[in-house]
Amino acid sequence: MGSTKLISLLFCLLLVISTSAATQKKISREPCKTLVVYFHDILYNGQNAKNATSAIVAAPAWGNKTILAEPTHFGDIIVFDNPITLDNNLHSTPVGRAQGLYLYDGKHTFNTWFGFSFTFNSTGHKGSITLAGADPFLEKTRDIPVIGGTGDFFMARGIATLMTDGFDGEFYFRLRITINLYECW
Amino acid sequence: MGSTKLISLLFCLLLVISTSAATQKKISREPCKTLVVYFHDILYNGQNAKNATSAIVAAPAWGNKTILAEPTHFGDIIVFDNPITLDNNLHSTPVGRAQGLYLYDGKHTFNTWFGFSFTFNSTGHKGSITLAGADPFLEKTRDIPVIGGTGDFFMARGIATLMTDGFDGEFYFRLRITINLYECW
Amino acid sequence: MGSTKLISLLFCLLLVISTSAATQKKISREPCKTLVVYFHDILYNGQNAKNATSAIVAAPAWGNKTILAEPTHFGDIIVFDNPITLDNNLHSTPVGRAQGLYLYDGKHTFNTWFGFSFTFNSTGHKGSITLAGADPFLEKTRDIPVIGGTGDFFMARGIATLMTDGFDGEFYFRLRITINLYECW
Repeated sequence: MGSTKLISLLFCLLLVISTSAATQKKISREPCKTLVVYFHDILYNGQNAKNATSAIVAAPAWGNKTILAEPTHFGDIIVFDNPITLDNNLHSTPVGRAQGLYLYDGKHTFNTWFGFSFTFNSTGHKGSITLAGADPFLEKTRDIPVIGGTGDFFMARGIATLMTDGFDGEFYFRLRITINLYECW
Repeated sequence: MGSTKLISLLFCLLLVISTSAATQKKISREPCKTLVVYFHDILYNGQNAKNATSAIVAAPAWGNKTILAEPTHFGDIIVFDNPITLDNNLHSTPVGRAQGLYLYDGKHTFNTWFGFSFTFNSTGHKGSITLAGADPFLEKTRDIPVIGGTGDFFMARGIATLMTDGFDGEFYFRLRITINLYECW
Repeated sequence: MGSTKLISLLFCLLLVISTSAATQKKISREPCKTLVVYFHDILYNGQNAKNATSAIVAAPAWGNKTILAEPTHFGDIIVFDNPITLDNNLHSTPVGRAQGLYLYDGKHTFNTWFGFSFTFNSTGHKGSITLAGADPFLEKTRDIPVIGGTGDFFMARGIATLMTDGFDGEFYFRLRITINLYECW
């Protein structure tokens, strides 16, 4: 048996390995996909039914559904249907929606917890990703896990980095969200 | 050193690679496990306490806990303890339960978001899977990520495809759910 | 071409494979990280505002926000901001917090569903993990999936095993939680 045969075997082996890698999930510390979107939340305050995109739907015994509970809004749960835009303008054409809930879960400090999905319906992306995790929103940037996806984001995982990009009192805030996926198909 | 030795080395290498794959997680675009179940939801309406399997527990300021909020039920949160069956008959012996919550989070269209677990206790399967994601239920089929599992479903991930299989007004609906796991141990 | 060259090629190949493994995620049935923590929950009952760490924020039509609904608390949603300690003493210095929600979702039996994050801020760990899943708390031990993480727990997945370690009526309970991560970077 000559060396040539062995070399063929080697290349064959290499081929098997790389083929298997190609049909498998990409997993790497370099993002396999990155998206930047803006998230706009207008909370219902009893008088803005037309414009509001979110509403308090649960509150502790000492709270109510038109004013966030004092002092840290602890116990309030908000359901939202928020537009997602590619720039920071609330009136830009949405590329999708962020829908789900967040809750205030800091008794002595401000903290929130999000469980929601981004659904994209633009020309660029079709599909959804689901996120769940803590958002201590007084920090400049916060990371929330991306725990699953569908469509173009089939089986995706990653990290979304949130930055508060603007707010107006307690009834409007805007997040700049950088989504980095580290597991893609 | 002869060619035979080299061939041995090659096979040894192949063995290492395949052994390592065998003890690792199966990850593939072909499902490693598929289940089809039916999910039955009977919503509490103030008069069906005995039969109801779910209840509105949170609602926006303009809603209440026995009637879904108009026009798109936006802001209602429902907690459920729903039987899971292998056929579409509500009265078949359940093979497990679906327990958790869903919320209506479309302001202008119908949309829901689910966070829940299937717990199986049949002879076929022991363990649970957790799902979280958007269900725009007017679409014929919708995909929701399976984000984790325990027992027979240890560390599982996948996609559940939901189809509305029947409904009776606003207080009963039945889903046909195909669970495809793409990551199994 | 001599055998030596082939052997070099082989070693080169081995190196590529092992390097790729080293820069990838660790996935194994042996935990890559294990943590044991205690979780303390003091539920608001109308009279313990100062000490309470959690509160009923949603309840079914037949419930309220200071008494858990009878008979199985079905439909109650609790938001919590619970201290995490390294031993079973409520008054030990917390190493982090558990924040999020749980809900009672058993109509005829006791069952809960958790969606929350551990945020660690001790010298040992910085970062958070998110958990979601069913806790049938009358069982001795229960498993809940760890579905994502950030910081030191970047992209983590695993299983948390819960044991009820103590309770005092319906307004205090303590869990011993063993967190085993099976996917780490």
